[in-house]
Amino acid sequence: MDLLDRLSEILGPAQVLRGADALAHGRDWTGHYAWEPMAVVRPGTTEEVAAVLRLAQETGTPVVPLGGNTGLNGGTCAQGALMLSLARMTRIRDLNPAARTVVVEAGVVLETLHTLAALQGLAFPLTFGAKGSAMVGGFLSTNAGGSNVLRYGSARALCLGLEVVLADGRIWNGLTGLHKDNTGYDLRDLMIGAEGTLGIITAAVLKLVPAATAHATALVGLDSLSEALKLLNTVQAGTGGAVEAFEFMPDRYMARLARLKPALACPYAPRPVNVLIETGTTVPGADPIGALEELLAGAMDANHVTEAVIAQSAAQRRKLWEMRESAAEITFTTPDIVDCDIALPLDRLETFLARMTPALAALDPGAEELVIAHLGDGNIHYTAYPSRSDPDLAQAIRAKVSAEAVNLGGSFSAEHGVGISKRATMAAHKDPVALAMMAAIKAALDPKGILNPGKVLP
Amino acid sequence: MDLLDRLSEILGPAQVLRGADALAHGRDWTGHYAWEPMAVVRPGTTEEVAAVLRLAQETGTPVVPLGGNTGLNGGTCAQGALMLSLARMTRIRDLNPAARTVVVEAGVVLETLHTLAALQGLAFPLTFGAKGSAMVGGFLSTNAGGSNVLRYGSARALCLGLEVVLADGRIWNGLTGLHKDNTGYDLRDLMIGAEGTLGIITAAVLKLVPAATAHATALVGLDSLSEALKLLNTVQAGTGGAVEAFEFMPDRYMARLARLKPALACPYAPRPVNVLIETGTTVPGADPIGALEELLAGAMDANHVTEAVIAQSAAQRRKLWEMRESAAEITFTTPDIVDCDIALPLDRLETFLARMTPALAALDPGAEELVIAHLGDGNIHYTAYPSRSDPDLAQAIRAKVSAEAVNLGGSFSAEHGVGISKRATMAAHKDPVALAMMAAIKAALDPKGILNPGKVLP
Repeated sequence: MDLLDRLSEILGPAQVLRGADALAHGRDWTGHYAWEPMAVVRPGTTEEVAAVLRLAQETGTPVVPLGGNTGLNGGTCAQGALMLSLARMTRIRDLNPAARTVVVEAGVVLETLHTLAALQGLAFPLTFGAKGSAMVGGFLSTNAGGSNVLRYGSARALCLGLEVVLADGRIWNGLTGLHKDNTGYDLRDLMIGAEGTLGIITAAVLKLVPAATAHATALVGLDSLSEALKLLNTVQAGTGGAVEAFEFMPDRYMARLARLKPALACPYAPRPVNVLIETGTTVPGADPIGALEELLAGAMDANHVTEAVIAQSAAQRRKLWEMRESAAEITFTTPDIVDCDIALPLDRLETFLARMTPALAALDPGAEELVIAHLGDGNIHYTAYPSRSDPDLAQAIRAKVSAEAVNLGGSFSAEHGVGISKRATMAAHKDPVALAMMAAIKAALDPKGILNPGKVLP
Repeated sequence: MDLLDRLSEILGPAQVLRGADALAHGRDWTGHYAWEPMAVVRPGTTEEVAAVLRLAQETGTPVVPLGGNTGLNGGTCAQGALMLSLARMTRIRDLNPAARTVVVEAGVVLETLHTLAALQGLAFPLTFGAKGSAMVGGFLSTNAGGSNVLRYGSARALCLGLEVVLADGRIWNGLTGLHKDNTGYDLRDLMIGAEGTLGIITAAVLKLVPAATAHATALVGLDSLSEALKLLNTVQAGTGGAVEAFEFMPDRYMARLARLKPALACPYAPRPVNVLIETGTTVPGADPIGALEELLAGAMDANHVTEAVIAQSAAQRRKLWEMRESAAEITFTTPDIVDCDIALPLDRLETFLARMTPALAALDPGAEELVIAHLGDGNIHYTAYPSRSDPDLAQAIRAKVSAEAVNLGGSFSAEHGVGISKRATMAAHKDPVALAMMAAIKAALDPKGILNPGKVLP
């Protein structure tokens, strides 16, 4: 019996997609990547995932896990491989509002977590544009970030425990909900961010936090990034660390937004630096809008801030957020872009941008650049639009961005992971001892190399 | 030339302690453990650590790293092994108040970090009783916790990057200060908490936080743990999550404290549950003492709290903290104790304690128990004083405590690590697949098994 027939026997024939049905999963949403998978399997339980992996291990079949397919680095490319979709594993296994934890399976969509938590007066603070599609298994496997990392951390900081199926089908039950647990190596954080190359996450214990009972959201115009960083420190100190988001949208971003989504145009003539600030509080009777108004008024008096709009209603708040969350939509308008996701020390952001503009022009005088940033984390999404479709040029631009970031003490991948698109950059810039350690760990946990082959490791 | 002569050539003879000089390092401070080391070496630089490990690798010599020697589980036992002290590696390599980071070597003492940060108006929030001796390398290798974990996390949450010497002497430079960096596997968190079995931490980038400009510190008496947990939620919500410490001292702890350190006796007739609460704020003009007074007055009106003392001066605050920080001193009064460090879901703490009292009496009717807890983290330090010196009885008590904790969804090691004393518990209670993964990683990174042999892994 061939492999697909054996898989059909385990999962039922309806859960093994072949031919055209499989090919429908043969691309990523950016349009950068396309492939022809061997088949797509859709297990419904951890035991079924384990059975698929036992069979894959026995037959040496490469397996690529698939969540909401919203990744940006080709992490789900699966040429000739078996794709393992977690989309049917959508159970909420446990919800404990008193302990502020929820145990969910890998196929639960991020936005579902938001809804679920809100019904309990709690919040799951991880959020980003693709929240309506991204799934637990995917956002943990890529250690996703987003707009609230400043206050709550990346996906890793919001996960207490994991259930993982290993390459040979063994199931590791690490579903602890404890905040302190020093019983051996930190296997949880090793699996988080490994992009499915060390094991397949099937379930997780996630932290919930008290939902802010009031927010203040503002869009602020300033003349420079250094003024913006002063403002961040002022608002952090003045609110006791209540800043939940501090998002940078330069004038060029505002112009593109006005062109592609006119309803979301900047409410004032855009400044070189525009920042979406949001604070949140759980203190009963607190007035975060009044507090933010006062802090911004002080900053305007001191000439640090030149424009400021504060949302006075939920609808106005929603609109300010849509300006930010349209980023992927207005960025990925053509496959021929070079999208880079870098992190820098906060005091080097300005230098980086000042250096990149002429560096890009030197490589391609007709190229345009687009920047948006999680400023509070030092995380810039830098996108170049080359004037011609030329893989060598694209590679040269990517290499330049990475090299400039690394030269300034930064990283060539902040929150989007490595996937396929940054493997060459890994080889060029990652510490060689770290690469050797990664290779040793990969060989130890997946000796046949069947898990998401060709990703992460150069 | 024999090994010690070769080490003398590398480090200079003064940095290779032999015979009686080495034997002076042959015990831990609790008096539980004693051993005879082959020698003690004291390298002064990362390169020297690497040279020692290259030689150890070549000769198959076991190496046990040593920091401030304040661990509680025998993690530095080194019978016949080479002890590698990091005590001479005390450089502050970089201090960046704007980025709120500091790069320090492994031998820097925790209290030095506190002083250093305070001089910049910042804080390094990790703190515990042994802060005057514990060193960076040790508190990272054990992922130490302490009294501020509730707000700031354990050591792992306060570390951004590491420099580590591997078993074969290669140096991994992972000294990043970035808050976001998704470039491959999380090697940093793998090394943190590995107790020196995967590599020797020689330097780290640590996070600093804005120093609270005002604190409120109170000692509160209540009738039950469930009342105390309600109070925690009340104070968290009422201060916007500003609770820095929430420490449980039961009546029995207060009685022992009054007997051994009369100057630190409880200022009221101790209640069954007494809690040290501290909040901190950076908001200019805030009145945390007034806010806490108001919250406690409300809790007294509702009969949740029966006694409350709020510190009105730095000296009073200091005295309340001394009551808590005397824990190790008043607990480790004899080597014949069974000290357990467990974590539980917050809603199971009361059940655990209610079960343990009769369970201990059943094992040894003459035994006494002492409890102190980082209540906000669900972390209990449970100590039994058996009526006789009997290793089998001690083992039976330890096994019972661990089993009860695990039965209730808890952990048998919250913040002290595994060392030697909990290896049997690891074998009994840790998920077998997790143990197999740990063994595979250990074999991949330290194939000869020379790094801190006999620790952590069962």
